[in-house]
Amino acid sequence: MEAELKGLLSDLHSLKDSLRERSHKDLIDKIQSRVEHLSAAEKLANAHRSKIKDMSAEVVDSNPYSRLMALQRMGIVDNYERIRDFSIAIVGIGGVGSVAAEMLTRCGIGRLLLYDYDKVELANMNRLFFRPEQAGMTKTDAAVQTLTDINPDVVLESYTLNITTVQGFEIFMSSLKNKSFRPDKEGSGVDLILSCVDNYEARMVVNQACNELNQTWMESGVSENAVSGHIQLLVPGETACFACAPPLVVASGVDERTLKREGVCAASLPTTMGVVAGLLVQNTLKYLLKFGSVTPYLGYNALKDYFPTMEMKPNPQCSNAACMERQKEYILAKPARDAAAAKAKMEAEESVEPECLHDDNEWNISVVDDDNDAQGSKASSGAVTEGLVHELPSADAFQQPPVTEETTTTTTGDDLEELRKQLEALNAD
Amino acid sequence: MEAELKGLLSDLHSLKDSLRERSHKDLIDKIQSRVEHLSAAEKLANAHRSKIKDMSAEVVDSNPYSRLMALQRMGIVDNYERIRDFSIAIVGIGGVGSVAAEMLTRCGIGRLLLYDYDKVELANMNRLFFRPEQAGMTKTDAAVQTLTDINPDVVLESYTLNITTVQGFEIFMSSLKNKSFRPDKEGSGVDLILSCVDNYEARMVVNQACNELNQTWMESGVSENAVSGHIQLLVPGETACFACAPPLVVASGVDERTLKREGVCAASLPTTMGVVAGLLVQNTLKYLLKFGSVTPYLGYNALKDYFPTMEMKPNPQCSNAACMERQKEYILAKPARDAAAAKAKMEAEESVEPECLHDDNEWNISVVDDDNDAQGSKASSGAVTEGLVHELPSADAFQQPPVTEETTTTTTGDDLEELRKQLEALNAD
Repeated sequence: MEAELKGLLSDLHSLKDSLRERSHKDLIDKIQSRVEHLSAAEKLANAHRSKIKDMSAEVVDSNPYSRLMALQRMGIVDNYERIRDFSIAIVGIGGVGSVAAEMLTRCGIGRLLLYDYDKVELANMNRLFFRPEQAGMTKTDAAVQTLTDINPDVVLESYTLNITTVQGFEIFMSSLKNKSFRPDKEGSGVDLILSCVDNYEARMVVNQACNELNQTWMESGVSENAVSGHIQLLVPGETACFACAPPLVVASGVDERTLKREGVCAASLPTTMGVVAGLLVQNTLKYLLKFGSVTPYLGYNALKDYFPTMEMKPNPQCSNAACMERQKEYILAKPARDAAAAKAKMEAEESVEPECLHDDNEWNISVVDDDNDAQGSKASSGAVTEGLVHELPSADAFQQPPVTEETTTTTTGDDLEELRKQLEALNAD
Repeated sequence: MEAELKGLLSDLHSLKDSLRERSHKDLIDKIQSRVEHLSAAEKLANAHRSKIKDMSAEVVDSNPYSRLMALQRMGIVDNYERIRDFSIAIVGIGGVGSVAAEMLTRCGIGRLLLYDYDKVELANMNRLFFRPEQAGMTKTDAAVQTLTDINPDVVLESYTLNITTVQGFEIFMSSLKNKSFRPDKEGSGVDLILSCVDNYEARMVVNQACNELNQTWMESGVSENAVSGHIQLLVPGETACFACAPPLVVASGVDERTLKREGVCAASLPTTMGVVAGLLVQNTLKYLLKFGSVTPYLGYNALKDYFPTMEMKPNPQCSNAACMERQKEYILAKPARDAAAAKAKMEAEESVEPECLHDDNEWNISVVDDDNDAQGSKASSGAVTEGLVHELPSADAFQQPPVTEETTTTTTGDDLEELRKQLEALNAD
């Protein structure tokens, strides 16, 4: 539009030069002033903030980072600006993924890699982020447009592809391996992958990629009836992978694809998806900036405002070969890990400064103490087995089976049979 | 801009008519085609969807309500379209209020009343909703601009005023009483007020208005260190009002205004505010559309993903005269309430259809059962006294004092003294 307006002005100049009559020249002047007015309006509408080199903690209205840098002064994080070093890949830019991307962008994350093959539709307008005028655009293009406007400091990479195709998977893998953003980084080129997809197949592909790359990731999901969701941290070799604990849909022998029938669409709510995205990115920030504790699995039951938590160990008979590799490595590295932990503990004890957290606590801010936690989240953990059964099963969102640590680590054909029976009993209700 | 482009075209027409040379006419044609191109681009950029008369459940990409109407088919709500009958007032269009407004707009709420006196600044960009190019606009104007684009079906009323001034309070009250949207509605003109303000004084004003109008409302808040928040349901006469249980800041005799010093700004995160807004609007939807259970008080501790719940009865010695009136009315209406409840129970028992909820449960969706709830949220309730202490005290966000049901209903000067001592003990830690 800007180029078009410039062309217009230059055409008017040549026309004016070639005209002799006063009245014609006057009319050209009038037209010119209209075009200049349009140009000014256009410039104003596109006035985006310029890039900011260093994050400042200065408390002025014009500083987009003042409220984030305040996390340091409040003693929540040690070094907020480190966020600029991190790369996050978000797979699926739908109701959860798009909001997660916006939150990370507003937090000033270093680099975001966005993966989706779908287009924006008016039917998506019941969730946050996309706007009606973006209908028809690819979700990746629309997201880059919006996110660039919000924060030009974030490096955005957009991949309009389906990771479940052979070609898509290849590009997915090579983009994750690319380390040009931070060549010194160990492992892959990203610090965390957030899975925000809506189907089992895509989750299995993310799982495969992460097991192969030894890449920590977080999974998220929202049920088809829109009133429950979950997030889960997956560390290859250390926690259960997505294939370790087969979702009930698989255990019951039902092909998920047959459940996605023509004319049947899942319900969704901006509230549930906003909460799940918020919990997902909050745990992402805790993981990256090392504050609070990252929750291994957190459920959200919207009908009762109930939030079950749990942990899952890897399955030593997991069907995923890369997971088995990571498990072996994890066991082999145990002595080194134990030694490092003991050393860190000793150093911490030597340099202990009691109460230093509250040293300049002029706001009297304190966090829930351990006693509380014992009563709160541990009480919830105790109720996990039942809590998770009742989120199940959902065709579109992966839900964990009702496995305790013991059953996970000894899952066999018989256990699957047992799961199948449990599912059938549920269905018969 | 559209008018300017039309004027341009008409000026070009007159110029062309008065010119004789072929080369001049050709140049005008070229300029005209440029302007037409600009007009087309302009129209495309402003192509908003038209209003929709009835909410349809039809599953097509062009239907913005299909995923919401699906809540009926899934058995979550009885009649989703009822949402169009409701009016919600949101006081404070900041990090929580703006996201709550967007969620309700995308859900197709009937009417939204928005109150704020502040302007958008770049310093707000670390939270969702506002865009950098809106810096300098009032938050109400910017919100109306964005929300109208998202869903033109919602009736938006914007009040750019400070409710804590005498004049502002008068307009606030009269706007809440206005019943022109639904003249047959009982009580005030709104169905619920959401308090999303960031200071104690404004909360006390909302409390006063709601006690006077006998208006149910929900309160929300986020702590100054950005890592905890809460929502609370307040029903005049039935639950504690905001003055029934004085926040610790008051109990300790510290004037909150002295805590808001120059150059000191609170930390904030889009995650915490997104989660609080999501929980707030989710409970709003449950309240309006009668599904699930509305949580009386729900806390969110982001560091530990801990969600305490509690209930608070009104204080029979509340300092708020209007609250005391509502309490008297509530007690007087008890026999009628009991009779109605007994009748409803009897009717429900007569027409009971066991298992009907799961009759066509082809997705095998079930909700957490009561046993679970007993283990989950009740366990959390048990930890409430401590849980709430540790969110305290925050100058900017109202936090509940560590009161059990008993102490609330017998709050006296001695209890306040006790609270003050507890606070001092906390500070001394």
